Amino acid sequence: MFELSLHARQTLKQVTERVQQQIIPLEQPFAQAMANPDRGWQLMPELETLKLDCREKGLWNLFMPVKEYGAGFSNYEYALMAEAMGHSLLAPEVFNCNAPDTGNMEVLVHYGSQLQQEQWLKPLLRGDIRSAFCMTEPEVASSDATNMQATAQIQGNEVVLNGRKWWSTGIGHPNCRMLIFMGLTFPEAPKHQQHSMVLVPRDHPGVKIERLLSVFGSRHLPQGHGEVSFDNVRLPLGAIIAGPGRGFEIAQGRLGPGRIHHAMRAIGAAERLLKMMIERGIHRRAFGKPLIDLGGNRERIANHRMAIDQARLLCLHTARLIDNQGIKAAICEVAQIKVVAANLMQQVADDAIQMHGGAGVDDSLPLAEFWAGGRVLRIADGPDEVHRATIAKLELKKYGHL
Amino acid sequence: MFELSLHARQTLKQVTERVQQQIIPLEQPFAQAMANPDRGWQLMPELETLKLDCREKGLWNLFMPVKEYGAGFSNYEYALMAEAMGHSLLAPEVFNCNAPDTGNMEVLVHYGSQLQQEQWLKPLLRGDIRSAFCMTEPEVASSDATNMQATAQIQGNEVVLNGRKWWSTGIGHPNCRMLIFMGLTFPEAPKHQQHSMVLVPRDHPGVKIERLLSVFGSRHLPQGHGEVSFDNVRLPLGAIIAGPGRGFEIAQGRLGPGRIHHAMRAIGAAERLLKMMIERGIHRRAFGKPLIDLGGNRERIANHRMAIDQARLLCLHTARLIDNQGIKAAICEVAQIKVVAANLMQQVADDAIQMHGGAGVDDSLPLAEFWAGGRVLRIADGPDEVHRATIAKLELKKYGHL
Amino acid sequence: MFELSLHARQTLKQVTERVQQQIIPLEQPFAQAMANPDRGWQLMPELETLKLDCREKGLWNLFMPVKEYGAGFSNYEYALMAEAMGHSLLAPEVFNCNAPDTGNMEVLVHYGSQLQQEQWLKPLLRGDIRSAFCMTEPEVASSDATNMQATAQIQGNEVVLNGRKWWSTGIGHPNCRMLIFMGLTFPEAPKHQQHSMVLVPRDHPGVKIERLLSVFGSRHLPQGHGEVSFDNVRLPLGAIIAGPGRGFEIAQGRLGPGRIHHAMRAIGAAERLLKMMIERGIHRRAFGKPLIDLGGNRERIANHRMAIDQARLLCLHTARLIDNQGIKAAICEVAQIKVVAANLMQQVADDAIQMHGGAGVDDSLPLAEFWAGGRVLRIADGPDEVHRATIAKLELKKYGHL
Amino acid sequence: MFELSLHARQTLKQVTERVQQQIIPLEQPFAQAMANPDRGWQLMPELETLKLDCREKGLWNLFMPVKEYGAGFSNYEYALMAEAMGHSLLAPEVFNCNAPDTGNMEVLVHYGSQLQQEQWLKPLLRGDIRSAFCMTEPEVASSDATNMQATAQIQGNEVVLNGRKWWSTGIGHPNCRMLIFMGLTFPEAPKHQQHSMVLVPRDHPGVKIERLLSVFGSRHLPQGHGEVSFDNVRLPLGAIIAGPGRGFEIAQGRLGPGRIHHAMRAIGAAERLLKMMIERGIHRRAFGKPLIDLGGNRERIANHRMAIDQARLLCLHTARLIDNQGIKAAICEVAQIKVVAANLMQQVADDAIQMHGGAGVDDSLPLAEFWAGGRVLRIADGPDEVHRATIAKLELKKYGHL
Repeated sequence: MFELSLHARQTLKQVTERVQQQIIPLEQPFAQAMANPDRGWQLMPELETLKLDCREKGLWNLFMPVKEYGAGFSNYEYALMAEAMGHSLLAPEVFNCNAPDTGNMEVLVHYGSQLQQEQWLKPLLRGDIRSAFCMTEPEVASSDATNMQATAQIQGNEVVLNGRKWWSTGIGHPNCRMLIFMGLTFPEAPKHQQHSMVLVPRDHPGVKIERLLSVFGSRHLPQGHGEVSFDNVRLPLGAIIAGPGRGFEIAQGRLGPGRIHHAMRAIGAAERLLKMMIERGIHRRAFGKPLIDLGGNRERIANHRMAIDQARLLCLHTARLIDNQGIKAAICEVAQIKVVAANLMQQVADDAIQMHGGAGVDDSLPLAEFWAGGRVLRIADGPDEVHRATIAKLELKKYGHL
Repeated sequence: MFELSLHARQTLKQVTERVQQQIIPLEQPFAQAMANPDRGWQLMPELETLKLDCREKGLWNLFMPVKEYGAGFSNYEYALMAEAMGHSLLAPEVFNCNAPDTGNMEVLVHYGSQLQQEQWLKPLLRGDIRSAFCMTEPEVASSDATNMQATAQIQGNEVVLNGRKWWSTGIGHPNCRMLIFMGLTFPEAPKHQQHSMVLVPRDHPGVKIERLLSVFGSRHLPQGHGEVSFDNVRLPLGAIIAGPGRGFEIAQGRLGPGRIHHAMRAIGAAERLLKMMIERGIHRRAFGKPLIDLGGNRERIANHRMAIDQARLLCLHTARLIDNQGIKAAICEVAQIKVVAANLMQQVADDAIQMHGGAGVDDSLPLAEFWAGGRVLRIADGPDEVHRATIAKLELKKYGHL
Repeated sequence: MFELSLHARQTLKQVTERVQQQIIPLEQPFAQAMANPDRGWQLMPELETLKLDCREKGLWNLFMPVKEYGAGFSNYEYALMAEAMGHSLLAPEVFNCNAPDTGNMEVLVHYGSQLQQEQWLKPLLRGDIRSAFCMTEPEVASSDATNMQATAQIQGNEVVLNGRKWWSTGIGHPNCRMLIFMGLTFPEAPKHQQHSMVLVPRDHPGVKIERLLSVFGSRHLPQGHGEVSFDNVRLPLGAIIAGPGRGFEIAQGRLGPGRIHHAMRAIGAAERLLKMMIERGIHRRAFGKPLIDLGGNRERIANHRMAIDQARLLCLHTARLIDNQGIKAAICEVAQIKVVAANLMQQVADDAIQMHGGAGVDDSLPLAEFWAGGRVLRIADGPDEVHRATIAKLELKKYGHL
Repeated sequence: MFELSLHARQTLKQVTERVQQQIIPLEQPFAQAMANPDRGWQLMPELETLKLDCREKGLWNLFMPVKEYGAGFSNYEYALMAEAMGHSLLAPEVFNCNAPDTGNMEVLVHYGSQLQQEQWLKPLLRGDIRSAFCMTEPEVASSDATNMQATAQIQGNEVVLNGRKWWSTGIGHPNCRMLIFMGLTFPEAPKHQQHSMVLVPRDHPGVKIERLLSVFGSRHLPQGHGEVSFDNVRLPLGAIIAGPGRGFEIAQGRLGPGRIHHAMRAIGAAERLLKMMIERGIHRRAFGKPLIDLGGNRERIANHRMAIDQARLLCLHTARLIDNQGIKAAICEVAQIKVVAANLMQQVADDAIQMHGGAGVDDSLPLAEFWAGGRVLRIADGPDEVHRATIAKLELKKYGHL
């Protein structure tokens, strides 16, 4: 809707072309490779080659708004690129725009010490290593973050980590070298000043990947999600990001733009799914007609078009609001796009699957994986219910009702 | 989202203030007056006074994009004013922005001869008279406009009208003086060149209001909707707008911006309804709590906030598209907003009614009337199904599937 | 599903025939008569004749389970007749099965003194008079009945009524002679022993009909709903039903079977609406096809068939549960049918309206009136939300969660 | 609702107890065993022991209505047992009631020659072998069965099978020894007399399992679904069931009761899922309350309770209809339960997952697997759309609209 700079326009075009012409064709070979138990958890050479080429061509770190470290696009500009990447689940990593590395890099840019940046930010920016983020815990409802039980206690000149985390995304990646851990440091402090974030080398003593979780049967290869135990993990105080007790402050800053990325990728996914749904509906026939012309299928196409277009406009509006007025002005909108985009992606995926019949649930097409991605997005980074509660709270606040 | 001109911003502010401070307080007295069978179908003096004042202050003909005839706002600018007017069902007429007069005036500006403009456009622009639009027919499915059966036959230097129309909105208004009739002239011509639009004085011989229709029990006072018979209504050829056979061409041009108006008013209505829902939910208590804090009520507030914000963005985007690229570039978007806004208005009204309990269905509050307005909007100007079919058709066209 | 007795089977057949052949044909003349402001609030002679005939033939008081006073059918048997009556909004009164008279008669049978029965029950059973029920109040959320503010104070040998009621159904009927009032007698007693029910002649001093309410524009002629003020209405203690403080006990007993009646009528209405929807869809054509064969219309037919069949089974199951195990065993099921049937009726009505286009919202067809009936049923006798809360409460109780 | 025989009541009780006390506790060990790539596709000894015990105790072949071959319960009686088994995905096989063996056994009972019964029915009835069913094809829309392309050509005294099938359920089971293949024999015959069903030993030359399909990432161990190629598979004519050209006739008879089984298992699954949802909602806390008491969660519980109870009644009603009047009288009802039960199971699973957060999507709980089961049931044995079309067709037939 708004004019893009020439650079953004050109980059968007290149990202779109690469996704459509180079990455999507790799989906099926990738799925086959991952289905092979002897090949899982390994990198796919074709994707690695693409990645190197993107890095060389400057199609790299597109998410990073700070020019010194990356592409320097606005949220609005990057949102459109995130949508383009959303068309394939394999795309984000190719442009070094993969969660949770993106959020972790942003944290290091804004809160990392020079040493921390040297050690972790640089290799992440180059894509030489990957990272994980360890916040959610199995034993408590993480929708209420103050429930967190893991600890990051300060003992002398060390910080000592204990507890169990799960949904530690990225930890299964062969190149994962670092994880950010969040735990309780000051139980007596005000609610949002109790926790610290700590940088932990993946192979540090006391860190143990208990198991790798599945998402509706998928291992989300190659990054994976882990359940990780921390047993007296001892690190120097310099491993704490921005100082003890600032965990929540960092977490909040980390989430806003990240939700734009997630939401726009979900919208890109929805476009891809709608496309697959239509193509299947046009080419398969039953009862003498293309499926698309039977029953309420055209109505469903129209409904998805309306939903996608509205979700995109909401998301771009939010991105621009953040660009112009900062994240705090956009709290309601950020909560909205989180709910809207995840549900959209799940819903379009569900109908696309239905149009494919049996072919829709097997892993030879990416439909089931897309569906799972949308479904889990309704839980990850705060479930729908928490975001709806936020939206309602802000609405009622206008009327003085707390 | 986009910058408004100073004039637009100031006008929007004034419209908003008048609606909230002067018009909404008249709703209840108006409802009481209309409920009185001896008072129905008459004008309310307080509203007439407001109207005169708006005309004097230039808060008038805000919908008219052609500066020579009215305010000269863009579709985008007027859309925001239409939303402000949508907060009250009484508001549009106060600013001389009431359908179907608005569409009729646009038709006369774009297609009317000098004589036609002199006779009908001028008094309409001044608000001295009102008008009706006679297209829909009781005997055929009007969703398919080519079904139309009424005729406008050319006999010598006269055009002769025969047939029966209904949902002729505005015909009950005490000041209604003219109606635009659409009928079949050239049955053998290509499908969209068969019909003519004719200007008919309301009291012309052969025009008979058979009855006034109700919309869920409401007569939609004071304008009303009529079932009208035309029995050999004879008019000079000069009464035909733009020449015989151009009816569809005119109808198409008439609808696009009109749908923006309708949709934005529906969004304004939805905001008002959400406000009423919240205020009731905060102030009524049951089981020891404000209703708003019971069950899923807060979720419903959040869902409505998300739906309204998305619908508004879609509508403003469409308005801007029309402003920048013309109505033909926005066919899909116009169909979308028609479906989205009408369903939104109905849905929020339904939940607002539920929150009010018995008070929600009676006519002492405008809730039932708003609901009926939203419900009928899902039928008027093409039912949901036709617009969904259009959206799907345009989507499938991208894939070469016709 | 279960075998009916010969008597029940024959009665059901006769009720069905009368509704279809004699009552439905009167709907349109009735609507026209009621639309005439000089004719409203009067009885329609044709209906009165039918009524007398039904009384003579014993098609009368079919709802009354106690043989001494009426037909003596089980809830299961009467449920099927209620469905048959639900096909027309005019039908119940013809068989003297109209709310709130039915509930009022049941109350008098079970709780009325001999004198009360003589004075009010007999003429009600004969259909000579009608009655109203005054419980809901405008100033409080009636979903929580303990909110009730009206008072029925005992002063010496009189009970004195004060307060304001609304949605007093039946009070507009020309033959209404009596109303049952519920008010607070013992503010200090346990919550469900505070209120009394009192029999009040409609024309008693201090009883004033402030206005007649509308339901989406309909006055629900000829019975109507009133807002009624009670200003020091003094009655002898003998006017109290079953003794002071027993109001809630009576109200509870009154509602269970009444909800079966409402629900089954709603299901009958849904069947009628589906029929109208299909007939319209078959006979109207657009774009070269019957409407029913366009878009998702057949899917909607299938969805309604599934919903209706399930709702009926649930309702019949509930009726039988009450017959076999009493109302207390069926609390959850009664709450379920209330929600299910009302929403079903509203939903089918909405789609039937859509299939009719403009003809669906005007009062020349009963669609809008049916819709309004379904809509208001989601509020009357406890809103959806209260019944959902009951269902959830009973479900969670199984797990010990209160 | 209806009285059960003593035998049925006792059997139902025993099945319920075994499922709850012996089978559900094995779910987690089973999931762990299957997740181990070295253990997949093997049988679990604990389950095999249970199976033997059930066979000894006569809790065996409960689905088989013909007393000579199995338990001899009515559809109504077995429906309740199927619901009890539906609580665990592992249960049906334990009672030798697992699809597709159940359908295959019914086919052999009704259409098998003595030889065929000796060879295949007996070991199936004993549970010594398992079987597969090969009907669906990858290259055509199987929702329209006349699309089928595989061939079963008669050449001399042999029948020769060619083509490719998929979703051949059961073919991955270590004990699978036989599959039923359906293919085109008489291309010129009337539409429903063209195909034959043929009994094929799994290891017969020319039969090749190309790959094992996944269902949202699950391999549905241990039975599995295969894509199977048939390359000039030659069998004696005696392998054809009931003679050439009778495939459709057999397929129709096979499906009716099978859909009752599927539907009732889905309802049992929904009950289990609701239970898991509630238990999680009661025990997890956020923002100071149990999750179940937040937002709209209680409304969701109520909605699921209403949906489950209605679906069960519909299903039992259908079972009884088949028992009393045969499968042909229940075509509409069978289509209904197929749609209703599958959607119900998916919907309750989705909400149960949401209540569990991250724990809901991983395979350590059976939620994701249940979800996948419900989702695939919306496709298997005819997609929702085909069944909705059937229901609508039967409804419109009442009005003479074909």
